[in-house]
Amino acid sequence: MNKGRLIVFSAPSGCGKGTMLGEIMKDERFRLSVSATTRDPRPGEIDGVNYHFITREEFEKRIENGEFLEHAEYCGNLYGSLVNEADPYLEQGLNVVLEIEVQGAMQIREKRPDALFVFIAPPSMAEIRRRLLKRGTETPEVIEQRIAQATMELGYAQDYDYIIVNDALEDAVADFFTVIRAEQVRAPFMSDHIEEVIKNA
Amino acid sequence: MNKGRLIVFSAPSGCGKGTMLGEIMKDERFRLSVSATTRDPRPGEIDGVNYHFITREEFEKRIENGEFLEHAEYCGNLYGSLVNEADPYLEQGLNVVLEIEVQGAMQIREKRPDALFVFIAPPSMAEIRRRLLKRGTETPEVIEQRIAQATMELGYAQDYDYIIVNDALEDAVADFFTVIRAEQVRAPFMSDHIEEVIKNA
Repeated sequence: MNKGRLIVFSAPSGCGKGTMLGEIMKDERFRLSVSATTRDPRPGEIDGVNYHFITREEFEKRIENGEFLEHAEYCGNLYGSLVNEADPYLEQGLNVVLEIEVQGAMQIREKRPDALFVFIAPPSMAEIRRRLLKRGTETPEVIEQRIAQATMELGYAQDYDYIIVNDALEDAVADFFTVIRAEQVRAPFMSDHIEEVIKNA
Repeated sequence: MNKGRLIVFSAPSGCGKGTMLGEIMKDERFRLSVSATTRDPRPGEIDGVNYHFITREEFEKRIENGEFLEHAEYCGNLYGSLVNEADPYLEQGLNVVLEIEVQGAMQIREKRPDALFVFIAPPSMAEIRRRLLKRGTETPEVIEQRIAQATMELGYAQDYDYIIVNDALEDAVADFFTVIRAEQVRAPFMSDHIEEVIKNA
């Protein structure tokens, strides 16, 4: 059996990342890696589902033990992806999606050259603005901060392997599965088959 | 408008390359590049359709002029792919498929780093043998020569970008189009879109 693929999945806010991941996770070949954090659970959040909620002391000990694929501090809290969250699934042949922001992604680029990097981009910033306004949960000031943040994040898009524009959700999800299928027939992943054919010539 | 993609397409004999290309060419976004050769036309072959039939003198002059993407001598005849056969289509946004053998392909690797390399592999050598026997046009000796040739060519498969196994024709053709679609969203090909989004933030 082939090992699964580690997939780093990043998107600026307003790019429909959550909805896309919801669709992708309907496919049983995929698992979403649950991040660890030192921040307190919000009402309704479940330990081990939304996040692994751990103390700062434990988080720092695990950093020292090399248990994180990546980690970052954000608004005074630590967030990170645990190696043991992904590897057992990969061994079972399942693909593991890490939903992380650009800086965390770049840490993984160095540690895991076998990972696949997918960036979700908006059709335009005007569209992001429209989506965030429609949500109605943020003030105009916060929306402009999100736009500035998104612009910064887009500057990292070229460091990913693939850039999928989420204009229509269905097309974006289809593009994601297309990329996964194409990656399966990239030459390095086909070497076992070729060796087998030559051996039994 | 985006430029088309130059696609180098190679397969050992018995891998169903001709049938696959027939299916691919039903899609109007693709053109098959016609090779030039110094060999004589066989009955039924049409100049400019099957090959561009030219004299050895003209072929050699065109090599000197740098008009070939690749060329090779085979059984005393020259074969090659002309630059001006592909480039006008690429400029029009059409994808051009070059059906060539492994050594010619490797010449293009150096000259055109933008080209996409697709290798078609058999499910097994036993299957190639079965297909060639079924055709009934070759002697057992010639079939074994073909098998030896195919084994040599498989040794180059890892130098291609993608390896598609042609077990069931429909699946292999679908894989080809999957690869083409995925390649369109590879990061370098999406840079114009990202720049546009950032510029109009």
